[in-house]
Amino acid sequence: MKRPGSGTFYGIGLGPGDPELLTRKAARLLSEVDWIFHPAETRTGGSFARHILDALELPAAKYRQVSLGMSRDREPDQRTYAAAVDTIAQVVRQGQSAAWVTLGDPLLYSTFIYVYLEMQQRFPDVPVTIVPGVPSTHAVAAAAGVPVALLDEQVAVVPATYGLQHLPALLDHFATVFLMKIHTVFEQCLEQLATLPQHVHAVYVERVGTPEQRVVTDVATLRGQTLSYFSMLLLRQDKSTLVAGQQKEAV
Amino acid sequence: MKRPGSGTFYGIGLGPGDPELLTRKAARLLSEVDWIFHPAETRTGGSFARHILDALELPAAKYRQVSLGMSRDREPDQRTYAAAVDTIAQVVRQGQSAAWVTLGDPLLYSTFIYVYLEMQQRFPDVPVTIVPGVPSTHAVAAAAGVPVALLDEQVAVVPATYGLQHLPALLDHFATVFLMKIHTVFEQCLEQLATLPQHVHAVYVERVGTPEQRVVTDVATLRGQTLSYFSMLLLRQDKSTLVAGQQKEAV
Repeated sequence: MKRPGSGTFYGIGLGPGDPELLTRKAARLLSEVDWIFHPAETRTGGSFARHILDALELPAAKYRQVSLGMSRDREPDQRTYAAAVDTIAQVVRQGQSAAWVTLGDPLLYSTFIYVYLEMQQRFPDVPVTIVPGVPSTHAVAAAAGVPVALLDEQVAVVPATYGLQHLPALLDHFATVFLMKIHTVFEQCLEQLATLPQHVHAVYVERVGTPEQRVVTDVATLRGQTLSYFSMLLLRQDKSTLVAGQQKEAV
Repeated sequence: MKRPGSGTFYGIGLGPGDPELLTRKAARLLSEVDWIFHPAETRTGGSFARHILDALELPAAKYRQVSLGMSRDREPDQRTYAAAVDTIAQVVRQGQSAAWVTLGDPLLYSTFIYVYLEMQQRFPDVPVTIVPGVPSTHAVAAAAGVPVALLDEQVAVVPATYGLQHLPALLDHFATVFLMKIHTVFEQCLEQLATLPQHVHAVYVERVGTPEQRVVTDVATLRGQTLSYFSMLLLRQDKSTLVAGQQKEAV
């Protein structure tokens, strides 16, 4: 039932790890599209995205694995993205549909962004539809049981590699700070945390939504451990803003 | 098949507005639980949450509407939350299961947070499971086709009522800023936007994921219009960080 010219390119978020945290829209579209492009690491051949997809029991012939080096030198991967975009533009122009899937949300620290920007630049005629997913940040908050924001509170999402020395200033303004990509700088992070006020609580969560999920509230016990790539630190100010203040939330 | 003591209280995010953006887990749990508590505005009787739920075609007898005034004086609503928590704790202790549903994610500017904190304080024995949802922020970015963050970029979520004068300072550090609750201060916001650098792009999105969704990139044209409560302004720095820099993203 494919009509020529009816193709679309979808950027689809798979959610943080639990296959049940896919949206109903993602599940439907993935069963409908002709091709599913999913990134995998060249080094390990592993693909967390593919692991989530397996729960959908789709035909294996749909999948197109795209191997990425994920190294500091972005040149090789940029060529891989360019080649994938060539292929996707070609099939879409033939009236087929293709999806690029990513963990979490497709617009938050994802491989889709590179594909999307390359596609916009070189093939602006290809229709793109982006399907948001549950980002890992909100899955981590749910696993930790920690409110993200209420009333006039502010939220920051910050890669830990950015500069941990800014943390005290950030916490002057933001009730909740998500520290991403924490695993490479965790020891330095612990030193910073020790200097923060008592009312700032830290929760470490790794592999959220998988059977290996770990939630650690006494983060100092993690010292010296090898941490997962899929890990995050959630910092929350406990200011008991609940009693005072104005409430005006959507229902 | 209910066993006494097997009850659980669920906080469930319904996603931003499109019933298909419910997660598969939310849909399953809502079909399984005995009771679904959903907030509605006293003044209008309206409930956007209920509107999303209707797509699931669940038995009407499951629903328990909780009417909230959503006024500046939080006292009456706090009493309503307390009464709802009494009821929920009672049914859960009897081995039944109950859900409190919210738009978007249950821990981001949601009514669930009030219920959750009250429950933790007064009935710490009641098991609570929180099911994250697609937050409106990420749905807005997807509708606008705007990347939220890549590489070492930072993201801020800020209620517009907090203090628009901080916006230039925020944009010194954050590549993307979501301005929430924009409708009451939009005119002041336009004045601030006019002073921002050229490379900061603003996109206005209202009623994301509904048939009434509106995406406006020339935000100055909105001057003088009555804006939806369900609206947001997405500010994004276009710094073309794509070519340089280090890539290390999850696959």
